[in-house]
Amino acid sequence: MEERKGKDLLQSVGGWKRTHHLAALTSENLGQEVCLMGWVQFRRDHGGLIFIDLRDRRGLTQIVFSPEINEQAHAEAHVLRPEYVLAVKGTVRERPEGMVNPRLATGEIEVVVTEWKLLNVAQTPPFVLEERAEVSENVRLAHRYLDMRRPGLGSNLVVRHKATQAIRNYLDQLDFLEIETPVLTKSTPEGARDFLVPSRLNQGEFYALPQSPQLFKQLLMYGGMDRYYQIVRCFRDEDLRADRQPEFTQIDMEMSFAEEEDVMGVAEGLVAEVFAKTLGVDLPNPVPRMTYAEAVDKYGLDRPDTRFELLLEEVTELVRGSEFKLFAQAEMVKALRVPQGSELTRKEIDDLTEFVKIYGAKGLAWIKIKDDGWQSPIAKFLSDAECTALTDHLGLQSGDIVFFQAGGADMVNTALGQLRLRLGERFDLVPADRFDLVWITDFPLMEWDDEAQRWVARHHPFTATREEDIAAMLEDPGAVIARSYDLVLNGNEIGGGSVRIHRSEDQWRMFDALGIDRAEAEEKFGFLLRALEYGAPPHAGIAFGLDRLIMILCGAESIRDVIAFPKTQKATCLLTDAPSAVASTQLRELGLRLREKKKSEA
Amino acid sequence: MEERKGKDLLQSVGGWKRTHHLAALTSENLGQEVCLMGWVQFRRDHGGLIFIDLRDRRGLTQIVFSPEINEQAHAEAHVLRPEYVLAVKGTVRERPEGMVNPRLATGEIEVVVTEWKLLNVAQTPPFVLEERAEVSENVRLAHRYLDMRRPGLGSNLVVRHKATQAIRNYLDQLDFLEIETPVLTKSTPEGARDFLVPSRLNQGEFYALPQSPQLFKQLLMYGGMDRYYQIVRCFRDEDLRADRQPEFTQIDMEMSFAEEEDVMGVAEGLVAEVFAKTLGVDLPNPVPRMTYAEAVDKYGLDRPDTRFELLLEEVTELVRGSEFKLFAQAEMVKALRVPQGSELTRKEIDDLTEFVKIYGAKGLAWIKIKDDGWQSPIAKFLSDAECTALTDHLGLQSGDIVFFQAGGADMVNTALGQLRLRLGERFDLVPADRFDLVWITDFPLMEWDDEAQRWVARHHPFTATREEDIAAMLEDPGAVIARSYDLVLNGNEIGGGSVRIHRSEDQWRMFDALGIDRAEAEEKFGFLLRALEYGAPPHAGIAFGLDRLIMILCGAESIRDVIAFPKTQKATCLLTDAPSAVASTQLRELGLRLREKKKSEA
Repeated sequence: MEERKGKDLLQSVGGWKRTHHLAALTSENLGQEVCLMGWVQFRRDHGGLIFIDLRDRRGLTQIVFSPEINEQAHAEAHVLRPEYVLAVKGTVRERPEGMVNPRLATGEIEVVVTEWKLLNVAQTPPFVLEERAEVSENVRLAHRYLDMRRPGLGSNLVVRHKATQAIRNYLDQLDFLEIETPVLTKSTPEGARDFLVPSRLNQGEFYALPQSPQLFKQLLMYGGMDRYYQIVRCFRDEDLRADRQPEFTQIDMEMSFAEEEDVMGVAEGLVAEVFAKTLGVDLPNPVPRMTYAEAVDKYGLDRPDTRFELLLEEVTELVRGSEFKLFAQAEMVKALRVPQGSELTRKEIDDLTEFVKIYGAKGLAWIKIKDDGWQSPIAKFLSDAECTALTDHLGLQSGDIVFFQAGGADMVNTALGQLRLRLGERFDLVPADRFDLVWITDFPLMEWDDEAQRWVARHHPFTATREEDIAAMLEDPGAVIARSYDLVLNGNEIGGGSVRIHRSEDQWRMFDALGIDRAEAEEKFGFLLRALEYGAPPHAGIAFGLDRLIMILCGAESIRDVIAFPKTQKATCLLTDAPSAVASTQLRELGLRLREKKKSEA
Repeated sequence: MEERKGKDLLQSVGGWKRTHHLAALTSENLGQEVCLMGWVQFRRDHGGLIFIDLRDRRGLTQIVFSPEINEQAHAEAHVLRPEYVLAVKGTVRERPEGMVNPRLATGEIEVVVTEWKLLNVAQTPPFVLEERAEVSENVRLAHRYLDMRRPGLGSNLVVRHKATQAIRNYLDQLDFLEIETPVLTKSTPEGARDFLVPSRLNQGEFYALPQSPQLFKQLLMYGGMDRYYQIVRCFRDEDLRADRQPEFTQIDMEMSFAEEEDVMGVAEGLVAEVFAKTLGVDLPNPVPRMTYAEAVDKYGLDRPDTRFELLLEEVTELVRGSEFKLFAQAEMVKALRVPQGSELTRKEIDDLTEFVKIYGAKGLAWIKIKDDGWQSPIAKFLSDAECTALTDHLGLQSGDIVFFQAGGADMVNTALGQLRLRLGERFDLVPADRFDLVWITDFPLMEWDDEAQRWVARHHPFTATREEDIAAMLEDPGAVIARSYDLVLNGNEIGGGSVRIHRSEDQWRMFDALGIDRAEAEEKFGFLLRALEYGAPPHAGIAFGLDRLIMILCGAESIRDVIAFPKTQKATCLLTDAPSAVASTQLRELGLRLREKKKSEA
């Protein structure tokens, strides 16, 4: 048997062996006999010849049917239409002068056909298979195999492959073991809603699909596996907000005998490797760090887009005594100065006002700094002293606009932080092709949940705090800092992790602080608590959202554009029509019945 | 920040940096100051010193607490018990004469402790963490994190990692792209039972977990992705037979413009790579091939264990006229001669008789060839001519035993094929450490299903046949040969694949041949049939069962021993207690209710 190694592995149909893919041939191949296979991108009949742009995922090659070379082959080629599949044998020759296409890798040559075979026919596709063609996403999703033949999605999937391969090689070199964890696992409500899988062999019981392998990777550390990773599917049954998927992929990692610096070092190397291997881009090293408090103070958000300035400034004290009661009485007042932003129209300002209301703001105060004074609905409420103080503090200059938000700190920060992003786009402040990474550290361990009326873990309830804060967990939960870290890229949280609790008594204390009673903790996490009693090592880890990382790498606008078969916002697959009704026998085997709709109950 | 690259990446706890893992130190390190972390495997107090075998997943290092070096450190070390976790700093020194342990990588040295920290305490484990200790599997599964600290499971997981990494590097080199396919997909009953996932956003509808990504990988080929692979979790809700898991892992591959030779070439290279990179074993190349007919004829099974001879011989015609009606009237009579097998006791033969009944045999005829004649319950029914014919045909010699099975061909082959395996073990005919691969080809495309009273696809209904057989698909379904191939290793089917149907009309013909009516085909596979109409390329692929392959590589007895967190035969997880009951609110959100048990209905 012939040896099949390396990239020159050949493929065959009916004994014909493909010799080149369709971006391979250049003038170096002139005169060679070749065998090509692919799809008809385009056919043109000209001067008694038939020209076909033959396409595969790598590119296009022009092939020519000429009656002088093979009369029958030429005659039969009249059947060819877009997306027909064919194999051709032929000779590489120079394109005639004036026909060279410098934008195409193979633009200097064409292949004149000596023999060909029709491998398949095709109906006319519902959309043109060119990159630029605007096609509604639903049509693309329903014909994903056609969308994939276009350059966009196809090349995104290539980037995704290269990225995951780079990640695996990097982590393998560092002695991380990829270990698979179960998909059919236990329901342990922890944040989002679980997808459930009814068990047939254990009727009335359910598996849950994992929201993350968090507990399993901790158990692997208890088991001495030392360094674990997995590129792993995770699941969340959420009401789908923009650009979430019910199933998504994580790069999941964990290390034993490790702390913040160890994990952050590995993670920085990993992201750097991905950028180097996919885009050839060198990321800054080391990655800058910022505390959560600083991020919220300056950017309003805990995932700051640091590619552009335009920072929030607190002015609470400057307007504390103002006659403008909204400012004077607010918990917090912050300003966002946009240099030379006064070109914004009234309509634009109205739109921005509507926009910040999404984030709980009641309105949006603003001042335009003009040569002839301040133009603003609120200027009249501000004293001269206040105006001066604001001018000095914010460095206001003629042509600027400054926005204000007053109220509770969370709302003020979120609304202005989001406004900042919106203004960054509006004023074209975001540099293209720039990748800004930043670590956010020193998050609060717990946050007060108004709805549940209890403290909830900000990261998850397995996150450790500093030794010196352990006592404060019960006394002053809001003040305790988590040993956690998020990695933010261009304003997207791409990864997050923490040092974990590894001592049984600390885990119990955490559940106590969260107001989870012992019986509930035992029921949900009993196996983990028991496992902690047999010598768990200190450990720490991180998880990255692969889909979003690849989206940024590809410059795609949605994670759906970097997933081969994504679901819609309603969690349906337009290609296969999942989910769908199932036979009643299937339900009966599972011991289930559908709950009657309200109407039929009446 | 210090650079963190390569295998010398260090981990830290409370500022102490681990300098070596616990199989690393040899006499080359004498005199060095080191920092080690791990678990107490064993403690021994001797001569006023405390000796600890400190363990991690790689090995053991002996550490010594001496009051002369650090009195307090020695005094405090009295708390140490098995599975306590600690970090030590100390100096590498030679072991005293007579204390060298040549069986241990670190057996020439010990580390005398200058400082140490207790990282965690441990209760006494429910079993001893040594490789040889016999522990019931249920106890091991319930304490998987302890089982993992023992050499067996831990090192199996390392082999698994190395194998998958080798596979990925091999396929990446060949320009295969790893592309993820959905886990939440459409229920398309095709063989085994699907696991279902109720949809909350689309109440009354269900996703199914994939039994394989078969249809998606075909769609990827239609999409022009050319060469696809994925190491992917698959699911089957079966009544679990020995050594199956409800979730299992496949190495899944597909190539466009490809045929049998292309796929078999890549697959052989893949398996060879795995053996080379994990065991350092060179497999024979090329892999021998055998038709399905020959495998069944000689070995009785379509997954022959070719590591030993002991072949089945058909003797139907030799005994066609026999007075022994059982032989004379049987559709098929086959013999299995065991050279020098007459040592088998009556009891053993009775056990073998019971064994073949599992496979539908009514009994088991046998003849022992003795120096003084034949000893057998059936000899008296055989004529001299028949005896001579059997002796000549089977090459019978004194000391042999020969077994017979008569009846329908399927039963005869299966029963004798299984008996052959059993006798191979009994007579120690299976060479250890030998890896015999064989391709089985030329399978029938369809088999008659007595229960369903229709033809069913042997591989799956997307398997192509040879061009010249297409017409016969409807006329003589049983005679049509599939373009499929199975790879068999030591009697285990580790992989199977086929050339796929790529033309819409051929796929319809296949559904017709299988008696699947058009409406049913449209409902289940409509999206595939439509996709075939837009120019699908010829394509072929294969899938390997990763768990079984790793099991064979590791010499493990069960696939559970190569899975980090496997389920029991009852599809439960003894560690996390999955599946489990869920809150009624969860069911209500899904529009489901539990079907009342019979009892309460009455």
